[in-house]
Amino acid sequence: MDIASYEAYCFDLDGTVLIGDQLLAGVVETVAELRRRDRRVLFLTNSSVHTPRDCQRRLEHMGLACGEDEILTALYVSGSYFAREEPEARVYLVGEAVMRRQMEESGVAVTGDPEEATHVLVGMDRNFNYEKLVLGMRAARRGARLVAVNPDPVCPVPGGYIPDTWAIVKALETAAGTEAELVIGKPSPYYAQEALRMLAHPPEHCLMVGDRLETDILMGNRCGMQTALVLTGVSTRADIARQQILPGYVLDSLADLFNK
Amino acid sequence: MDIASYEAYCFDLDGTVLIGDQLLAGVVETVAELRRRDRRVLFLTNSSVHTPRDCQRRLEHMGLACGEDEILTALYVSGSYFAREEPEARVYLVGEAVMRRQMEESGVAVTGDPEEATHVLVGMDRNFNYEKLVLGMRAARRGARLVAVNPDPVCPVPGGYIPDTWAIVKALETAAGTEAELVIGKPSPYYAQEALRMLAHPPEHCLMVGDRLETDILMGNRCGMQTALVLTGVSTRADIARQQILPGYVLDSLADLFNK
Repeated sequence: MDIASYEAYCFDLDGTVLIGDQLLAGVVETVAELRRRDRRVLFLTNSSVHTPRDCQRRLEHMGLACGEDEILTALYVSGSYFAREEPEARVYLVGEAVMRRQMEESGVAVTGDPEEATHVLVGMDRNFNYEKLVLGMRAARRGARLVAVNPDPVCPVPGGYIPDTWAIVKALETAAGTEAELVIGKPSPYYAQEALRMLAHPPEHCLMVGDRLETDILMGNRCGMQTALVLTGVSTRADIARQQILPGYVLDSLADLFNK
Repeated sequence: MDIASYEAYCFDLDGTVLIGDQLLAGVVETVAELRRRDRRVLFLTNSSVHTPRDCQRRLEHMGLACGEDEILTALYVSGSYFAREEPEARVYLVGEAVMRRQMEESGVAVTGDPEEATHVLVGMDRNFNYEKLVLGMRAARRGARLVAVNPDPVCPVPGGYIPDTWAIVKALETAAGTEAELVIGKPSPYYAQEALRMLAHPPEHCLMVGDRLETDILMGNRCGMQTALVLTGVSTRADIARQQILPGYVLDSLADLFNK
C-alpha cells in the first residue's frame, strides 16, 4: 500500500516531529499536506509531564498548529484510565505538579495520604527525592498498586538524556518489594486503545510513525496498524534486525512521507 | 559441635544485637561471657552510613562496650576494597556525607566530577534527589562502573522500613542502562574475606550469627563458617525451608547462646 494513502496518521513527538524545541525538517509541510488531503492526524507522546494542552501550545510555539483533540499524552491516558476503569480509586501521585492538574481534569480522586491510597501513579519527576520515595513505598507496602505512566528509562534531551519514569518506578518497586502492575504509555494496549478510539478509523487504515522500535513500532504492530520507522531519533536500521521488531516502512525523515 | 565452643563469633547488628536504639535481650551478658572466655568477637553490618567508629559509639551509648577493630561496616569494606583492589580509581559518590569521610580515611580518591569518575559508589542516601540521579547516571553513561555498598532494598527501623541502597542502585541502573558490577556488603565474598581477615581464625572455627538468611547465613555458609539464625529480626523458621538456606543452629535470641 502506498504510504501516502492511509486514512489516519499517528506521529510520535520526540525524535519524530521534534527534538528539544525544534521541529524536524519537513514536518510542517507533511502535516499541511495531510490536512489538505483531509486525513486524520494524531500526535502521540509518552510524556508524563505534559497535558494535551501543554503539547498543543508547545507545538504551536514551534510553528505547528493543531487541536487539543489531535494530541494524546501518556499522562492524559493515565487520567482517562482511572476515570474509566478504576472510578473508585484514590490515587497517590509520585510526579510533577502537572500530574495532579491532569488527574483533576480527568475527574480522578487524588489523595495526599499514602495510608489511604489504592494506587500509586508514578511519572517522571524532576523534583524526585528520598522523602517521595519513602511515601510512595509506604503506600505500596500498605497494598496500593503501582501504576507507571510510561515505561521509559530516560527522556532524550538536547545533548543526551535525563532519567524518566522507569528509573523512579524501579526505586519504588525495590523499596516496596513489589512490581508495577500496569504501564500506561506506549507500547501498552491501553494506550493503543485510546489512540484508536480517537482516530475513529479501523487500525489497518492507520499508519503509526515513530522513531523507537520498542515503543512506537511495537505498539502499532500489536494493535494492527501499519507502521513506519523514521531515522531521526533513537532507533537505527541496524536495530531492526537486532530487536526483531519490523516496521512496514523505513523513512529517513518525515519529509519522505510524500517523496518516497 | 557445641555452639558455645567456637573460637570466634560474628554478630550482625540490626535485628540480632539491636533494634533501633535498643540492645536486644541477653546481648550484654552473652558478649560479656564470650570476653570472659577470651573469644574473638566481631560485629558485622551492611550499613552504608556508618563507619566502625560511628557504630562503636552507638553501641557504647546503648551499653555495649567494644573496640573499633571489633566492627566491620559495608561502608568501611567499600573503602578498603578501593584502596586495595582499585588504587587508581577516582570514585564518584552517591550517598550521605559520611561516605566521603570514610573514603578519605581509607585513602580513596573521590571526585565530584561525574565526567572524570572511574566508578560510582552507591549507598543509602536519605538526601537522595533527582539531581543526584542525573549526575550518577551521567558518570555511569560515560563508562564509570557502578558499585553498590550493599544489596539491601530496605533498612529496618522501628515501626517499619526505609529505602536502602538497592532502591537507589536500581534507579541509577535504569537511567544509565547498565548494571551494578559489584556489591560489597553481605553476602558478598569480598565482605566475607574482610571479616575472616579480621577474625584471624580459620572459618570453620567461626560462628556467624544473624537474623537474615539471605545475607548473614548465606555469607557464613558460603565462606565456610558455621552459622546460627536468631529469630529476633527478619527471617523466620518457615523461611528456612522456603529459601533453602540452612543455618547450623536456630536461636530464639542471643540469650540462648549459652543456654541451649
